Amino acid sequence: MKIALINENSQAAKNGDIHDALTSVVEPLGHEVHNYGMYTVDDAAQVTYPMVGLLTGILLNSGAADFVVTGCGTGTGSMLAANAMPGVFCGLVIDPTDAFLFAQINDGNAIAMPYAKGFGWAAELNLQDCYRKLFEGESGIGYPKERAEIMAKNRGVLAELKSKTCHDMLTVLKTVDQDLLKAAIAGEKFADHFYAHSKDQSISDYLRAL
Amino acid sequence: MKIALINENSQAAKNGDIHDALTSVVEPLGHEVHNYGMYTVDDAAQVTYPMVGLLTGILLNSGAADFVVTGCGTGTGSMLAANAMPGVFCGLVIDPTDAFLFAQINDGNAIAMPYAKGFGWAAELNLQDCYRKLFEGESGIGYPKERAEIMAKNRGVLAELKSKTCHDMLTVLKTVDQDLLKAAIAGEKFADHFYAHSKDQSISDYLRAL
Amino acid sequence: MKIALINENSQAAKNGDIHDALTSVVEPLGHEVHNYGMYTVDDAAQVTYPMVGLLTGILLNSGAADFVVTGCGTGTGSMLAANAMPGVFCGLVIDPTDAFLFAQINDGNAIAMPYAKGFGWAAELNLQDCYRKLFEGESGIGYPKERAEIMAKNRGVLAELKSKTCHDMLTVLKTVDQDLLKAAIAGEKFADHFYAHSKDQSISDYLRAL
Amino acid sequence: MKIALINENSQAAKNGDIHDALTSVVEPLGHEVHNYGMYTVDDAAQVTYPMVGLLTGILLNSGAADFVVTGCGTGTGSMLAANAMPGVFCGLVIDPTDAFLFAQINDGNAIAMPYAKGFGWAAELNLQDCYRKLFEGESGIGYPKERAEIMAKNRGVLAELKSKTCHDMLTVLKTVDQDLLKAAIAGEKFADHFYAHSKDQSISDYLRAL
Repeated sequence: MKIALINENSQAAKNGDIHDALTSVVEPLGHEVHNYGMYTVDDAAQVTYPMVGLLTGILLNSGAADFVVTGCGTGTGSMLAANAMPGVFCGLVIDPTDAFLFAQINDGNAIAMPYAKGFGWAAELNLQDCYRKLFEGESGIGYPKERAEIMAKNRGVLAELKSKTCHDMLTVLKTVDQDLLKAAIAGEKFADHFYAHSKDQSISDYLRAL
Repeated sequence: MKIALINENSQAAKNGDIHDALTSVVEPLGHEVHNYGMYTVDDAAQVTYPMVGLLTGILLNSGAADFVVTGCGTGTGSMLAANAMPGVFCGLVIDPTDAFLFAQINDGNAIAMPYAKGFGWAAELNLQDCYRKLFEGESGIGYPKERAEIMAKNRGVLAELKSKTCHDMLTVLKTVDQDLLKAAIAGEKFADHFYAHSKDQSISDYLRAL
Repeated sequence: MKIALINENSQAAKNGDIHDALTSVVEPLGHEVHNYGMYTVDDAAQVTYPMVGLLTGILLNSGAADFVVTGCGTGTGSMLAANAMPGVFCGLVIDPTDAFLFAQINDGNAIAMPYAKGFGWAAELNLQDCYRKLFEGESGIGYPKERAEIMAKNRGVLAELKSKTCHDMLTVLKTVDQDLLKAAIAGEKFADHFYAHSKDQSISDYLRAL
Repeated sequence: MKIALINENSQAAKNGDIHDALTSVVEPLGHEVHNYGMYTVDDAAQVTYPMVGLLTGILLNSGAADFVVTGCGTGTGSMLAANAMPGVFCGLVIDPTDAFLFAQINDGNAIAMPYAKGFGWAAELNLQDCYRKLFEGESGIGYPKERAEIMAKNRGVLAELKSKTCHDMLTVLKTVDQDLLKAAIAGEKFADHFYAHSKDQSISDYLRAL
């Protein structure tokens, strides 16, 4: 699985620690991490949480990433922004049980975590445990398993509903504030990661042309 | 403020307790609670979490409610469904600090809480504390207050972004599965609460005609 | 390791679930669980949390158990009672990181968990994760490991301090309310588990003579 | 009420913030805070968590304080040390509901909180909320109130039990490592706070003579 890590500016200083925790867990499981940044608080490309949403929408709708790991101070801003996008189902994860239940019941494609609120000493242990619950096995199999069918049905209804409430991603790209969009993809490694992995030519073409 | 309470089927049995906790806190503060249900597990109108999202979108976009309090087993299904709708910014709230920070930083118009996961003995105390943080004072004034301006700016950017990613509510109502929509508004007190308080004639007309 | 499970009366109904969660994790790791009860709310032997403390003291000071897993509604009553006893160092564990840090930093010999407060749906997942952190590896090796030495030193100072504040266990047995003591060891499987595993003849003799 | 604040060395840098949070809540309620320190990481008097326990025992058994607020990185070391002392009933408090339930059910005389684990941005809000639950009203009245009697009875049994397991405080002072004891009371404001408020002449005399 291609997992994209996206940190916004308020918690950019923690990108290294979060990236370490994520890769230490998921690489041995055979997944790949693309660190879209931010990397430090002083990065030239400053990414705010609304941009995180836009970038999450781009990565998931283009197939450049299979899953997005994001967050912000409380996790909420980035979660709201991600969930504003078509095809994105972003959970807010605080502890390992949240992570497990999100994977098994909601089977979404993104999570946001708080990297400031409640994020104290030894928080890397909780990050690792949450990532393990998300990525170690098959997701979407329900919990308890007897309820798998009704859970899958509700997910399908939600996906269908969201397909009606949102415009498609290419339309979104064309209609949003183009300066915001440019800023969202201004990260220094965006081009390297994205164009190599995007499976949607029209999204790639549109972004390249900006 | 008109606060709508919406419970879905998996936690319907707790509606009475949640309603009691909510009214005990917010009515003395001068707010009004409209309990849209469900009320018991055996209600004729069974509301699933995708329907919660649809109903949340209807209530907030029509002005029939100023704020929606919802949730489900983990809170995540209802949160995802609510955030799939235009103009809805729904936080996931676990503890009083979450509630306070959501009110002050994100200033959204809905919250989802877990009513099964982590919901044990004395959980009504946490509900009350969370409601108090949400509804006791002015929201959106930032925390810390020195960061109020940047927080307000990001909220504005997110709202503008979401206005581009989502269709307007009337379009949503016309395009979603009409059986899902009928089920979402089939609660026994929906008509009483909604048509009396909706400020959007076109939404009211469309729903009445169903 | 011989792990004793002790449940008091307020949460006795959950003994089966807690025992299942504990054995499912620790038996594959080579540990043995002795379920001292209570087993159901209607057990003839009703164990209150002060009795849990006394029983914990008996099991650990006699060597009949190497570790005690206990708890109550909030975990606090049983924790206080356990920590009132000589040679008992009982942590209060809420989440897996608590469990890990308690094992590595404090290296105690008992934990109490809340089995009512915060104990909702899927709580068995958190129990399992906590047990795994406690029992899967070597404990007392510090976290981070660079601080192992100072952590071990503090543990030693605490143990030495507590050896001065408390009477020895046999003295405790002789001086406490003898009815309370009899009630603490009245569980239907106490005799089977205890006398077979106690390594302290004087404690065994005293209890047998009651 | 005279509330003593005791911070150990690992989290000494946070003493100012914790003291601010505590006084902002309890002084308007008519309580008095005695900040026994540590005050900064560089204090001449370095207090470890075992010393916190000893100091807590001194303050509560002498009547110099009515309640002790302490903690450490996870809260557990200071909690274990405090509970090792005669007459001390120290809860571990993570959130406001813990604080409320500890006050109402266990009615202890000390709490430990984690000041590193889970202690992130905006943690001062949680501190304030916890302190308010602990100190704003009468404690020991049970929750729910229908269970007040049985809760009070169990507390009495525990207090009686602990009176048998522990030596009295003066004996403890005489038998513990005298260097540890001297270090525990070496804080620069200990003498000012303690001798003015101690109600136990023999404890005061013993400590003065050291």
